[in-house]
Amino acid sequence: MLTSSSALPLRILVAPDSFKGSLTADAAAAHIAAGLTEAFGTDAEIRLLPVADGGEGTLDVLVSATTARVIEVPTTDALGRDRVGCIAMLPSGRAIIEAAEANGLPHVADAPLRAVDADSAGVGVLVRAALDAGATELVLTVGGSATTDGGVGLLRALGARFLDAHGRELRPGGGSLIDLATIDLDGLDPRASAARWRIACDVTNPLVGDDGAAAVFGPQKGASPHDVAALDDGLDRLASVVSAETGVDMRSVVGGGAAGGIPAALHAVFGARLEPGMELVAEAISLDEAIRASDLVITGEGALDAQSLRGKAPGAIAAIAREAGIPVVVIAGRVALSVDELRSAGIAAAVPIADAPAELDDLRARAGELVHAAAQRVAALIAVGLRAERRSTPTTAPVPPPTPHPRD
Amino acid sequence: MLTSSSALPLRILVAPDSFKGSLTADAAAAHIAAGLTEAFGTDAEIRLLPVADGGEGTLDVLVSATTARVIEVPTTDALGRDRVGCIAMLPSGRAIIEAAEANGLPHVADAPLRAVDADSAGVGVLVRAALDAGATELVLTVGGSATTDGGVGLLRALGARFLDAHGRELRPGGGSLIDLATIDLDGLDPRASAARWRIACDVTNPLVGDDGAAAVFGPQKGASPHDVAALDDGLDRLASVVSAETGVDMRSVVGGGAAGGIPAALHAVFGARLEPGMELVAEAISLDEAIRASDLVITGEGALDAQSLRGKAPGAIAAIAREAGIPVVVIAGRVALSVDELRSAGIAAAVPIADAPAELDDLRARAGELVHAAAQRVAALIAVGLRAERRSTPTTAPVPPPTPHPRD
Repeated sequence: MLTSSSALPLRILVAPDSFKGSLTADAAAAHIAAGLTEAFGTDAEIRLLPVADGGEGTLDVLVSATTARVIEVPTTDALGRDRVGCIAMLPSGRAIIEAAEANGLPHVADAPLRAVDADSAGVGVLVRAALDAGATELVLTVGGSATTDGGVGLLRALGARFLDAHGRELRPGGGSLIDLATIDLDGLDPRASAARWRIACDVTNPLVGDDGAAAVFGPQKGASPHDVAALDDGLDRLASVVSAETGVDMRSVVGGGAAGGIPAALHAVFGARLEPGMELVAEAISLDEAIRASDLVITGEGALDAQSLRGKAPGAIAAIAREAGIPVVVIAGRVALSVDELRSAGIAAAVPIADAPAELDDLRARAGELVHAAAQRVAALIAVGLRAERRSTPTTAPVPPPTPHPRD
Repeated sequence: MLTSSSALPLRILVAPDSFKGSLTADAAAAHIAAGLTEAFGTDAEIRLLPVADGGEGTLDVLVSATTARVIEVPTTDALGRDRVGCIAMLPSGRAIIEAAEANGLPHVADAPLRAVDADSAGVGVLVRAALDAGATELVLTVGGSATTDGGVGLLRALGARFLDAHGRELRPGGGSLIDLATIDLDGLDPRASAARWRIACDVTNPLVGDDGAAAVFGPQKGASPHDVAALDDGLDRLASVVSAETGVDMRSVVGGGAAGGIPAALHAVFGARLEPGMELVAEAISLDEAIRASDLVITGEGALDAQSLRGKAPGAIAAIAREAGIPVVVIAGRVALSVDELRSAGIAAAVPIADAPAELDDLRARAGELVHAAAQRVAALIAVGLRAERRSTPTTAPVPPPTPHPRD
């Protein structure tokens, strides 16, 4: 216990993102809190609020920050194989759906990647389960998908039909979109049409073209150059047909090319709003209120660099905290910002976790222990300030002012 | 400027050792001070007091901490070649002499190492110059020597004679000691005999035997196994002859085997006192008083490990500061002590300099910049504590207490 009990406890918000490849946001928060508690004891009130930026781990973060109920939903992966995915339901009627719980790349990592066949129907099954559970607001995160089907599978699972020139349903997967002739939205689940859709989306890639879903993200989903061309043509065809039906051009949606085109389709069909993932998460976990109710915020992530300040957790937290006049400390595996950059971002200090010369793999293997030790360090140094201040203001100081004792 | 001007300035003592292979103690202190100043501005009074533990760099540290006058002395290296070495003179009559300024290994690095010929006469020349300058107290540091001559060269430069059975002067170097028959101390400079001799010595090796000067340190001075045996025999012979003359057995001096036997000889002939280097330096630079006149001490060294707490700067500083109730922060390239070990040593926090995964050579190449950044980090975190404390004690707080602003 490093501070005196005469002061009010320091209210510390521990709000790290994940340390990618090492620690989930939950685990990082626990390690930070453990280090702080060892140093501060009861002199700090520590609140844990792990954060995410709309990408991987977002569902877990939203669930742990809210009173959400987690529902297990039998669905399918991007190759149509059975799997169980989770969604979260809030009492307000908001559902939180991580598309990758169904169409995520990790779930099909055991099979050869087939970008032209990968299908998002499983995501639609998750949506239907949310609607069954009473959802009126659908919050969808779309990172890490294996599909490039323009959201056709998703919409089909909700009742839409995608037909070729002979009136036959298209095969699943973006590879068949080039044969699309007409769509039939009459059978769409009316609850889906009535719901408020919000999609966490941080990329600005359009549906088609050189910066589009197929060209940019296709290769990592297993698309050959030939596949990329076929998928791009198919998505373009889809956009033409949808535009004729809805009057909305999927091709003009900024960020519509995320997750193989899902945001573009949901925007055109349901008026879904695309929002920066971090903002959406911040609102969902009441980050702003949590920061303003603290004296100090400690966040963290694997690498703190220029990107961290654009749409990532540390930047978002620092922006809120700066406005509120609350100091922010970032614990990170790599600190690649100068003091000036930190200062203008509103970050009081960035604390790297390495305790010696070490390789990345060493730091990763010891991430928990090192984050813990970094938090202890942070607490110990802050405590030095707390005690020094008491010493410098004798009128309220609970410890006597220093008396120099020259050696004789 | 991170603290408010309403508080008294924080009195910070910056007292690092060198970061071996990267930064001198002076340079480390300057980098730390620069980082602190950037963060604290005029809210801190920073005093620089680079430290050393009696080894390499000690002379520089003693000179920069005191009002010593530096005198250049034409002398000789361990091979008898001309060189200019420095000594320092204090108004009190204390001279500070680093033996390695004459007999240091680095000065003979250009020639093949010849342990049996290496001679300490140059050190005696430095001593004579100190006596000429009025020295009545001779403080000698003996680390890094190239000689194993039992201090014979040194004593000879002060007027002693070392003769073989035929009454001829021995050749310079420990290799000839086996022929020693008699010594003649009558011609010794009376000022040397009258002076108070103090030797900074951290090893406990005796003059001869398996742990002795030749066996342990001979090889790094170029001694072959055959040379080691010859040197050891010679030193034993020297001890016998000196014992017969002075009544003091050089072989029983703990630490007498440092610097090829110099401490043993000076103890037998002049009653020189061997003292732990760090204690001697601490006294010479008034470290105790400096610590007690500060609110916070920041020290540093290349590697903070269990050894640092035994006779090295961080351990010595922490011991004094703990007694005085003053927090100590250590900045280090490698932190290999646990929080419990730090706590029981009296170290509030140990701050590693690495900002990312990095190899030792990377850290060394960027040591100045990284030490600077670490100091900024330390200051920024302490300032968080200073500000948090103001917020928690509203009666004296110069900033208004926080008003929660819930989002609407």
